[in-house]
Amino acid sequence: MKTSPFVHRATAVVIGLGLSWAILRSTAAQETDRTKPAPSNVRGSAYPRIHPDRRVTFRVKAPQAQSVAVAGRAEDSGMNGNKPYPMIRGTNGDWTVTTDPVRPGFHYYELIVDGYHTTDPASESFFGWGQATSGLEVPDETLDFYRPADVPHGEVRIHWYASKITGVTRQAYIYTPPGYAASPTNRYPVLYLQHGAGESERAWTWQGKANWILDNLLAAGQTKPMIVVMENGYAARASETAPGQARGNAAFAELVISDLVPLIDSNFRTVPDREHRAIAGLSMGAGQALDIGLGNLDKFAYIGAFSGGMRNTDLKSAYGGLFQDPASANRQIRLLWLGCGTEDRGYASLKAAREILQGLGVHHVWFECPGSHEWQVWRKHLFDFVPRLFQN
Amino acid sequence: MKTSPFVHRATAVVIGLGLSWAILRSTAAQETDRTKPAPSNVRGSAYPRIHPDRRVTFRVKAPQAQSVAVAGRAEDSGMNGNKPYPMIRGTNGDWTVTTDPVRPGFHYYELIVDGYHTTDPASESFFGWGQATSGLEVPDETLDFYRPADVPHGEVRIHWYASKITGVTRQAYIYTPPGYAASPTNRYPVLYLQHGAGESERAWTWQGKANWILDNLLAAGQTKPMIVVMENGYAARASETAPGQARGNAAFAELVISDLVPLIDSNFRTVPDREHRAIAGLSMGAGQALDIGLGNLDKFAYIGAFSGGMRNTDLKSAYGGLFQDPASANRQIRLLWLGCGTEDRGYASLKAAREILQGLGVHHVWFECPGSHEWQVWRKHLFDFVPRLFQN
Repeated sequence: MKTSPFVHRATAVVIGLGLSWAILRSTAAQETDRTKPAPSNVRGSAYPRIHPDRRVTFRVKAPQAQSVAVAGRAEDSGMNGNKPYPMIRGTNGDWTVTTDPVRPGFHYYELIVDGYHTTDPASESFFGWGQATSGLEVPDETLDFYRPADVPHGEVRIHWYASKITGVTRQAYIYTPPGYAASPTNRYPVLYLQHGAGESERAWTWQGKANWILDNLLAAGQTKPMIVVMENGYAARASETAPGQARGNAAFAELVISDLVPLIDSNFRTVPDREHRAIAGLSMGAGQALDIGLGNLDKFAYIGAFSGGMRNTDLKSAYGGLFQDPASANRQIRLLWLGCGTEDRGYASLKAAREILQGLGVHHVWFECPGSHEWQVWRKHLFDFVPRLFQN
Repeated sequence: MKTSPFVHRATAVVIGLGLSWAILRSTAAQETDRTKPAPSNVRGSAYPRIHPDRRVTFRVKAPQAQSVAVAGRAEDSGMNGNKPYPMIRGTNGDWTVTTDPVRPGFHYYELIVDGYHTTDPASESFFGWGQATSGLEVPDETLDFYRPADVPHGEVRIHWYASKITGVTRQAYIYTPPGYAASPTNRYPVLYLQHGAGESERAWTWQGKANWILDNLLAAGQTKPMIVVMENGYAARASETAPGQARGNAAFAELVISDLVPLIDSNFRTVPDREHRAIAGLSMGAGQALDIGLGNLDKFAYIGAFSGGMRNTDLKSAYGGLFQDPASANRQIRLLWLGCGTEDRGYASLKAAREILQGLGVHHVWFECPGSHEWQVWRKHLFDFVPRLFQN
């Protein structure tokens, strides 16, 4: 990964957590410990608490329960390989456990109370795993590229629209860069950015911190200002009645091309051509970005696949045979960006696919970094990907 | 309450729930029942299910639990007076219960699994009661003023800013009306709108449906277009070190006057004077709206208190003695709006306060409707309040 311009500590900032420190003072000051509430705690919640060595102490009040455990929810959250940590009952109905050091970044987790898998009301919930799921943010003191800093901030707009493809009102989360409102004649390129399976249009903002990453890159002069459109990757055609068709990527692809791109180009100040349009996504969204981007090169010139999407089979016949003529593909594609965490279960197959592309002579960027199938990797992916966009 | 212009059924729309119907078809079609997944379910979740008579069936998989119950969380959610409904264990580890008919509107609720109070992963979580809390939306088939209709939609912008008062980055949710972006020279009045205790800046959008209410009123020609600023009512001064001071309304009032109003007036196209500025809130936010509005009549001319804020004691000395000179108060205040649900525990005391105002000759609007301390009441409050704003 490139050297971060953000090695300095950002100005200390806390979002919506004004009470956390106060509560900490009142309930835990006497311990004079060096632990801190996780940034992902709800306002005023003293637990989970992060230790300086990134062990995490969880505490839950469940006086009548027979067993309570906490477990990461991910391929490998860096938290005990997702093996549940049994919690120990205290004298007052509290159950407590301190984990091994947890990898920095964002981790979904769950409580298991007498076998019932549920959320921790002390943490913010995030839409993941197809439901409301607790999130734990473990700060990386050496990285601040995804933290809010004392720089101009863009907005994230919740934008509702009537989708012709699905027949329902949908919502997109749309990042507009700092200065967008103040520069009413400027026009901007657009990145379409997709979440993973079981997540939603909200994920890149709340789990991914995409807005902070864009703000920080822009303030450091590392990227051009752009609009980022984050929509929900699940779509069912209005005409579909059979359940098996409801989840198809085909309906989502159609929605992007027929509903979303025209919507954005008519409601935002875009540069509405392929040279100013990118599409990327993670995991399930990586597959969608490749399918939609490579399948519509008249509309997209920059394509990113984070931790998924391309399999090392039949790359010559995939994407309408695009890679049968690598020179033609290279002329059309301004950027084909593939990345993966080295501990991701899909790492080997994605790397094998990339090697086939190499063999074919298809230009692309390959990016790998430590980490698994997890948000900290995708934050780093976005941080590398964005500065490469719209440079021509 | 005034006759709603929205008695027609809105065009059927579903937000982020594209899969719900598909799953319903696949898993429940054979039942040929007339129940539907609640609109507050997460994508794809078949339960909770609403019956035509508004009974609600909850279902939870908890094979190892000894007892499971579901309960409303509110003064009175219209769901068994919040007495838990014990759920019945089925043969496959599912626990099920069907409630009595539930009052239409939005209700916080919780599951109680072996005595542990937690959320239901099948429903969206909302920030309420100071934590992530499950929400149940029970449609009112006779009302559609708060439902998304086939009308132009405004946006809700998540707007981050550095607060000088608190020393941290904060976020506001800001509704901009349809046409805001397309009319770059128009200027708009602003309503500052506050949530209740234990909630957040997100509540008026997700629980309250404020954006749909404003969209619908505007489409019906019942209101002027306006900006609505929704911020978090909790604030601690940067200088505060003693925990007891962290939660003061005084710091929030200072934040509104010193940080927020200047921020909005410099970043949005407002009409920056008292005649084009309103403040309202519910419960805790009602008290804040009265304190901030009546305490700063040079900045606010329209004030609304929904289900709280004014006590029937000492109204002559309150608000800097403002009501000692009713004629002067009446000249300054364009609208003083007080409302409450008739089943709210605070109803009698708020009505008594309003009667003192009447006795003093202080002009105001009094609005009451059936309901308790609940979001359905506050939706109706907003729907009555907004058309009265900025009419002079």
